[in-house]
Amino acid sequence: MSKPALQNDRLLKALLRQPVDTTPVWVMRQAGRYLPEYRATREKAGDFLALCKTPELACEVTLQPLERFPLDAAILFSDILTIPDAMGLGLYFSEGEGPRFTNTIRTEADIIKLGIPDPEQDLGYVMDAVRLIRQELAGRVPLIGFSGSPWTLATYMVEGGSTKVFANTKALMFDRPELMHQLLEKLARSVTTYLNAQIEAGAQAVMIFDTWGGMLNTANYLEFSLQYMKNIITGLKRENEGRDVPIVLFTKGGAQWLEDIADSGCDGIGLDWTIEIGAARARVGDRVALQGNMDPCVLYASPERIRQEVAHILESFGSGNGHVFNLGHGIHPAIDPQHTAVLVEAVHELGKKYHG
Amino acid sequence: MSKPALQNDRLLKALLRQPVDTTPVWVMRQAGRYLPEYRATREKAGDFLALCKTPELACEVTLQPLERFPLDAAILFSDILTIPDAMGLGLYFSEGEGPRFTNTIRTEADIIKLGIPDPEQDLGYVMDAVRLIRQELAGRVPLIGFSGSPWTLATYMVEGGSTKVFANTKALMFDRPELMHQLLEKLARSVTTYLNAQIEAGAQAVMIFDTWGGMLNTANYLEFSLQYMKNIITGLKRENEGRDVPIVLFTKGGAQWLEDIADSGCDGIGLDWTIEIGAARARVGDRVALQGNMDPCVLYASPERIRQEVAHILESFGSGNGHVFNLGHGIHPAIDPQHTAVLVEAVHELGKKYHG
Repeated sequence: MSKPALQNDRLLKALLRQPVDTTPVWVMRQAGRYLPEYRATREKAGDFLALCKTPELACEVTLQPLERFPLDAAILFSDILTIPDAMGLGLYFSEGEGPRFTNTIRTEADIIKLGIPDPEQDLGYVMDAVRLIRQELAGRVPLIGFSGSPWTLATYMVEGGSTKVFANTKALMFDRPELMHQLLEKLARSVTTYLNAQIEAGAQAVMIFDTWGGMLNTANYLEFSLQYMKNIITGLKRENEGRDVPIVLFTKGGAQWLEDIADSGCDGIGLDWTIEIGAARARVGDRVALQGNMDPCVLYASPERIRQEVAHILESFGSGNGHVFNLGHGIHPAIDPQHTAVLVEAVHELGKKYHG
Repeated sequence: MSKPALQNDRLLKALLRQPVDTTPVWVMRQAGRYLPEYRATREKAGDFLALCKTPELACEVTLQPLERFPLDAAILFSDILTIPDAMGLGLYFSEGEGPRFTNTIRTEADIIKLGIPDPEQDLGYVMDAVRLIRQELAGRVPLIGFSGSPWTLATYMVEGGSTKVFANTKALMFDRPELMHQLLEKLARSVTTYLNAQIEAGAQAVMIFDTWGGMLNTANYLEFSLQYMKNIITGLKRENEGRDVPIVLFTKGGAQWLEDIADSGCDGIGLDWTIEIGAARARVGDRVALQGNMDPCVLYASPERIRQEVAHILESFGSGNGHVFNLGHGIHPAIDPQHTAVLVEAVHELGKKYHG
């Protein structure tokens, strides 16, 4: 299938530190509960997981924010826990408690039994969604694919769901590091295969969400999280449809380790809001692009305040290539969509002075 | 009342970067649910808040871990939310949901109404507990007093309890910064008065817990959290009973801002587990002592693994003055007390080689 030419390639260029006319912007969870049309589609789907697993509906919600805002990218609507679900853990969502698994992974026997999911066979609904979204996007903006990081997936698999304290996961890591490595090794292979399949299906950039890497100490982060993300990067297809496919790593709470992350082989680093983006740039230099990093709570404030914060972050990054504007974490469900419009407009308008 | 001489002053000396025979150690939440005797006393009290508010019982649980382990400090058993409770917000604890307030603070009128609690009148149960603990300690080890930081207290007061996302607090901060400053100003005055009263009642060191400062971006952290902790430090009584009273600041997730925290006027910085303590020391030099910073989850591992991690942290800090060993956060309720014994013994034994 020949694909239509990409009309807006600001995102891909910025991630590759190439010149753009203004700073590109997209928003983590831009397809989400803050949009009434998303809530309507989710209602229609029945529940969140059905929405993820029905390509037509996943495509529908992926495109919704693009109808409202001149965003510079679409991001696949999916969940970070599709891989463990495909491994047979039985993902479900219980109201108010977030994701849960029917089966947990605690022992060597549990880990040995885990297979590497075949993306087209076991996660075909994701690949179908990617293909459908690309078709429906018709080249308007690039599509970002994604996966959870091995460490982040492991925390949910060992705990059986969300946790605040990571007691079981860390007990395994501290007491049986060789078992944790076996698990992470399988997850890294699975993520590599999964992201490559997304790229082949049409994802034009990929992002690895290391939501819980920041809960580790420095030595553990390097050994149990970053190392496996590096392994994934080594195995990824870096070019498709005649273009580079940029890779972004996002470790929430990872500001301490930016230099190490920049050395991972990734093209861009996703920053949470806690670090000043200019300070981050000073530390990593021009090795990688930076994506971020407004506190999502700024969107609760007035349009004037939002513009002021956008201006501050653009100025903090400064002139030159390699900035993709985003929030430092997902947009909150209670945000007024009009405030998102203010954000996107402000980035495009105020970003011009830092380019060309 | 003349007080018995202090028999073990390792903690105070280490916080003042003076020579000690071995590294002192205490454990955040050392009086807590992992101890069966604590659970028995709490049962007797009826609930957590009654335990905090009954000086005899607060004293009893404060001393319990000292009966088991040769810890180098006692820490007042209390809650960080006593000040807002004394301001009339109505603190209560609902099972599984953590602390809640009957009244929240959202508007200018709410803030104007808040008074500065008088420690002896409004928080007399805390002062009575401090006096009783000092009497019962009979000079064995020093007693640490504490408070929540103004920013951390503000988050609970504005949200009405615990939160993951700080939406209301940050909305107020971003949209009405002058109101947030009014609130923080009152809280800083309250904390200053409260900690000075604890010092006069017998606290020999004080710690400010900035549990949620790490949820701010750099500019906001400096303006809305650290600045108010600095103001408190300026107002604290630094000497009592003929000894210096060291002040420790603990910002969870604050590793990025160590240099700024070191310049606050504090004597010691509490470190969470995410930073390598040797790297922290290299950054702050000998300006301040460092307290920490083992991942609390290491205590789930085997005694051998616990000793190995203790050895690593001691070696990472290295020789010289100014290290107080602790966990990077509170001990978990599921920890085997025998593992805490292993920790304390390992610090004292392995710490010797780094001293005199």
